[in-house]
Amino acid sequence: MRLLLPAGTTETALVDGISAAGATPELMKHTPSADAEILAYGQPVAAPVTPVSPNGCPTPAAVTRAVREVCEFDVSIVDAGLAEPTAAPTVDLGVDPGADIRESTPVPDAASIFDRAATYASSLPDDDLVIGETVPGGTTTALAVLTALGEPAAVSSSLPANPIERKRRVVDEALEASDLRSGGLDGQPLEAIERMGDPVQATVMGLVTGALEADIDVTLAGGTQMIAVAALLRHAGLEGPLSIATTSFVADEQGDRLGEACYRLNCELTVTDPGFDEREHVSMERYCAGEAKEGVAMGGALSLVSEDRLPTVLDRFEVVCDRLGIDDERARPPTEGERGS
Amino acid sequence: MRLLLPAGTTETALVDGISAAGATPELMKHTPSADAEILAYGQPVAAPVTPVSPNGCPTPAAVTRAVREVCEFDVSIVDAGLAEPTAAPTVDLGVDPGADIRESTPVPDAASIFDRAATYASSLPDDDLVIGETVPGGTTTALAVLTALGEPAAVSSSLPANPIERKRRVVDEALEASDLRSGGLDGQPLEAIERMGDPVQATVMGLVTGALEADIDVTLAGGTQMIAVAALLRHAGLEGPLSIATTSFVADEQGDRLGEACYRLNCELTVTDPGFDEREHVSMERYCAGEAKEGVAMGGALSLVSEDRLPTVLDRFEVVCDRLGIDDERARPPTEGERGS
Repeated sequence: MRLLLPAGTTETALVDGISAAGATPELMKHTPSADAEILAYGQPVAAPVTPVSPNGCPTPAAVTRAVREVCEFDVSIVDAGLAEPTAAPTVDLGVDPGADIRESTPVPDAASIFDRAATYASSLPDDDLVIGETVPGGTTTALAVLTALGEPAAVSSSLPANPIERKRRVVDEALEASDLRSGGLDGQPLEAIERMGDPVQATVMGLVTGALEADIDVTLAGGTQMIAVAALLRHAGLEGPLSIATTSFVADEQGDRLGEACYRLNCELTVTDPGFDEREHVSMERYCAGEAKEGVAMGGALSLVSEDRLPTVLDRFEVVCDRLGIDDERARPPTEGERGS
Repeated sequence: MRLLLPAGTTETALVDGISAAGATPELMKHTPSADAEILAYGQPVAAPVTPVSPNGCPTPAAVTRAVREVCEFDVSIVDAGLAEPTAAPTVDLGVDPGADIRESTPVPDAASIFDRAATYASSLPDDDLVIGETVPGGTTTALAVLTALGEPAAVSSSLPANPIERKRRVVDEALEASDLRSGGLDGQPLEAIERMGDPVQATVMGLVTGALEADIDVTLAGGTQMIAVAALLRHAGLEGPLSIATTSFVADEQGDRLGEACYRLNCELTVTDPGFDEREHVSMERYCAGEAKEGVAMGGALSLVSEDRLPTVLDRFEVVCDRLGIDDERARPPTEGERGS
């Protein structure tokens, strides 16, 4: 099994208030580079920041890394449009960062990205691939392509209160900039990415297509962003089964919509619950409060963990958090008694 | 433990008859890209060639990969001047391929490569690094920098009959092109690389320096090319212990010179014998006949294998050779009886 992590950036992520993938918008462009380093090395190496939400919730890369330290699978990080350097080893497919979807053509080379990603994946000797993503603002571009395709448009958020109305306004502006109406790119997935999407979508779509052509099993590791990729693949005419693995945090937020989307897209759905509610650790509490939820293949990585090894993974997640400088004691809000002393 | 593999190319490698790292000079520029893919994936993925010598000896990457499949260590491939694309994930330190040492300045940015490699290595969270190399023509550039430093210049070869006189002629031309005499860059290691060396030397030298500054243990995994790096480090004023791990094939060829060089440079030497002579496999026979000998961290990787696991590694090497299309039966020269039939 190999985990592929396409990592990219867009200027769409800079729209105020749509993403929690970084403490500030300026730091957010470093998030995918830092996520790649955390997955490759266990901590940031060259990236100047450890990705935490404004409320101190650590990046899901910390969870995926914890699983990897216990379960030991291969990882290849794919540069799907990084804007900042990373010290992580990356596969270079010549992908540029995405522009703002409120411009007419945010991903002008979507078709050639797709082709290069497909060629790469079809050459891999692996039997199974788990494909994740790290791209700040990715649920907004997911909403945008779903809208362009005319698919029911429900997406998750890395924020506890999903700023869905804000995202819809961005998508409306994007439609206008691209001179499109909702559903105007039905059956034209690469055009949908080119005019409304992000380079990570083109990369993941290509990876899945190439892998399936080469009879490699694929699991899409993510939430509503991977629903959008599944919709893109169906609009490209892909038949045959697809599989998505995501976290219980996405499933809890989405309710029935997640299963309905998977049913409509003929996707097998695996929901993984890491059992964070059974521990008292500030990072796990943040996830239980609805922050971050998913990303960096967290749900797919957790789907590899057998029940008896889950406690070991949770212990390891605490170690990774320590290493990232997320100290449980200092980060935990003071209790009444402590405040009084 | 993490294996770092700086992979690069030079135009020096195109000098006729100095390297066996590829079936033809035109294919040789793909060798480090293919080696990186074999180490990362177990076989070439995008590279158009499987590196074998003109006599059919497979690249040492196949041995290192076999060890990795049994012993499971982390790998980071560093782009130290690749000339051709690779599908392997690589750490990008902005290193260009080296020019021909018969030009005045084959590595104009040696000092900045050194700095970037040192910064990268000093940031790694690992306790131990094994640092190898893959660069065709690397023993010729090793001979060149040793000569420039005024060190005893003995180098190994990937060919069974070391074309050492040919290499010396190239080095003489390189000295002339750089307006240097033997020993003219005593105590000036970065200048020696800039005017007589290759970008992989600057990268390895930087990686070692950065790692040691960060109290990370380092093993130089290679033969006489790593002797040259050790000499460069000593000329840079590095004190403290150094360690080299190489194969018995290099040790057999070099005789007393290897131990003497290590003694002079205060390098602990580990020689690993993979026991290829106890098997009947065409690839192992080629190594026993003195081909390839070392490279892609082969000796360092083998030093990680305990005696009881060595048979498993040899079995796995046969599997890797099969996967690379090196079929023992077809590659083996026909016996008398077979020829007669």
